[in-house]
Amino acid sequence: MVDDVHEKRPFISKLPMEKEDLLLFVNADVEPKTKYVDELTERVRSFSSRQPSAVVGIGGGSVMDLAKAVSLMLTNPGSSADYQGWDLVKHPAVYHVGLPTLAGTGAEVSRTAILTGPVRKLGINSDYTPFDQIILDPDLLEGAPADQRFYTAMDSYIHGAEALRGKFINEYSRAYAEKSMELCREVFLGELNEHVADEKLMIASYFGGLSIAYSQVGVCHALSYGLSYVLGARHGVGNCVIFSHLEEYYPVEVREFRTMVAKHRIPLPREMTKGLDDHQMSEMIRVALSLDPLWQNALGPDWKKIMTPEKARELYLRL
Amino acid sequence: MVDDVHEKRPFISKLPMEKEDLLLFVNADVEPKTKYVDELTERVRSFSSRQPSAVVGIGGGSVMDLAKAVSLMLTNPGSSADYQGWDLVKHPAVYHVGLPTLAGTGAEVSRTAILTGPVRKLGINSDYTPFDQIILDPDLLEGAPADQRFYTAMDSYIHGAEALRGKFINEYSRAYAEKSMELCREVFLGELNEHVADEKLMIASYFGGLSIAYSQVGVCHALSYGLSYVLGARHGVGNCVIFSHLEEYYPVEVREFRTMVAKHRIPLPREMTKGLDDHQMSEMIRVALSLDPLWQNALGPDWKKIMTPEKARELYLRL
Repeated sequence: MVDDVHEKRPFISKLPMEKEDLLLFVNADVEPKTKYVDELTERVRSFSSRQPSAVVGIGGGSVMDLAKAVSLMLTNPGSSADYQGWDLVKHPAVYHVGLPTLAGTGAEVSRTAILTGPVRKLGINSDYTPFDQIILDPDLLEGAPADQRFYTAMDSYIHGAEALRGKFINEYSRAYAEKSMELCREVFLGELNEHVADEKLMIASYFGGLSIAYSQVGVCHALSYGLSYVLGARHGVGNCVIFSHLEEYYPVEVREFRTMVAKHRIPLPREMTKGLDDHQMSEMIRVALSLDPLWQNALGPDWKKIMTPEKARELYLRL
Repeated sequence: MVDDVHEKRPFISKLPMEKEDLLLFVNADVEPKTKYVDELTERVRSFSSRQPSAVVGIGGGSVMDLAKAVSLMLTNPGSSADYQGWDLVKHPAVYHVGLPTLAGTGAEVSRTAILTGPVRKLGINSDYTPFDQIILDPDLLEGAPADQRFYTAMDSYIHGAEALRGKFINEYSRAYAEKSMELCREVFLGELNEHVADEKLMIASYFGGLSIAYSQVGVCHALSYGLSYVLGARHGVGNCVIFSHLEEYYPVEVREFRTMVAKHRIPLPREMTKGLDDHQMSEMIRVALSLDPLWQNALGPDWKKIMTPEKARELYLRL
């Protein structure tokens, strides 16, 4: 499964395809949907009566998540929407391998495959979700647009900030989060040549993902899920827009983030929530506030007293 | 398999033993020998006609290595001495789990089980060697003598130094090595309470081990293997004594190391090689110089022109 933006790239012709392999170009213009996962799973099933030996995903976070989800759905009955949640998967997935072509999401190591379903944006979180094997090849990062590279990289910076300021933090996750953020700093505040920067970004993403694996994300990710659910906003850019307004929760980190945005002249979208109707705003708030573990981590067990629907609305209106 | 120094510790009575479990206290007063691994494997075999479901090692680096080696030898024929080297193991091991009670060696994550055999001190390095599962519980570090805690922790500091100054370095290993050394600094140059320090030491060890997994150790470890082979010196203390004399190769790191030694009033042994006869010295040099990958990493492909037997002797005489 290869992101269709790579259809013309030279590495495609170098893929060591065998007769019975299926090369599936997948579209990631919008965030992955459960319906799309079910369609792709069906295409794999109809290609051969035998289960594939492996599913290989080559692309950004969305393709990583699609590959993980398809590998799970090949061995589990029903729709992928049935498995959005925690530990609902019953059977081990088909062996699956990830090759990220964008660095930052941590999807290459995470225990989740984040999907937008009929009711919510929520991952398939299970012990069977993580890749069996990953290949981190910085050459695959070449050619990504500068804005997209930045937005995606900031996902791992934000993972670090949310892990470190969260209640679930521990020394394992702290070490990974601190180093991940430090690598982001080296890349976006230092002066590295591009190849070294790409290598460091791949490790920043990997460390950010491992940090979250034993802790949890927070305010920014919860709000970002609501935003993506209603507006279809890409995770990376949604995160960046939201994070820049969260000085109240991540003061030092938001200031540093803004310095990086300014240095790289990244155009953050404005007025994203302008003109939304009441129903859309309510849906956005509903989805965001349904993510209990994220709010527990960010604000503690009494989070509902702090992050009321009114407060969430106020934060969304800042965007 | 539990280090016999823990025989009287309260956690022993809490081990959830079942009827067909074998509790094997093992001795780690000297570095693990291939002969001892073969004996332990035989004891497990004679306990039951069935293969165990799992081997669990609880102890320091030596017990980690013994547990890894026994789990391999239960499924592979011959003596463990036959497998000292790289990728000689043919069959997957019995499922094996590690619970370190000392932090620093990285044995809980390494791809090796280091053994002293009839001809050399060299690990069983293979894809089947690493533990299937590890449990990092800082409570298990309590009660270790301060000197031993320091010597073992410095193993991970030295792993970091050797990885970072080595030719095999890459951004994966660099990130792990830098963070591992930073954690050692926090613990031994900072003022942490003991519980937090123990947690950080466990992560420092883990990160140091992961750094080495994709790079290599260097001058200190090569010389230390020779020292252990001839004098039976424990790896941790041997490393520390040698490292303190390696300013020529690791200038900044050796100075920082000495600051930590001084701050914690650690009594480094002196005159370790005094009174050795010619045969012992030659053996020590032979074992050290047989470790080609370590010297390649430390000094490059032409290492034999730099690290001559005469130079190795000179370094050993400094101890």
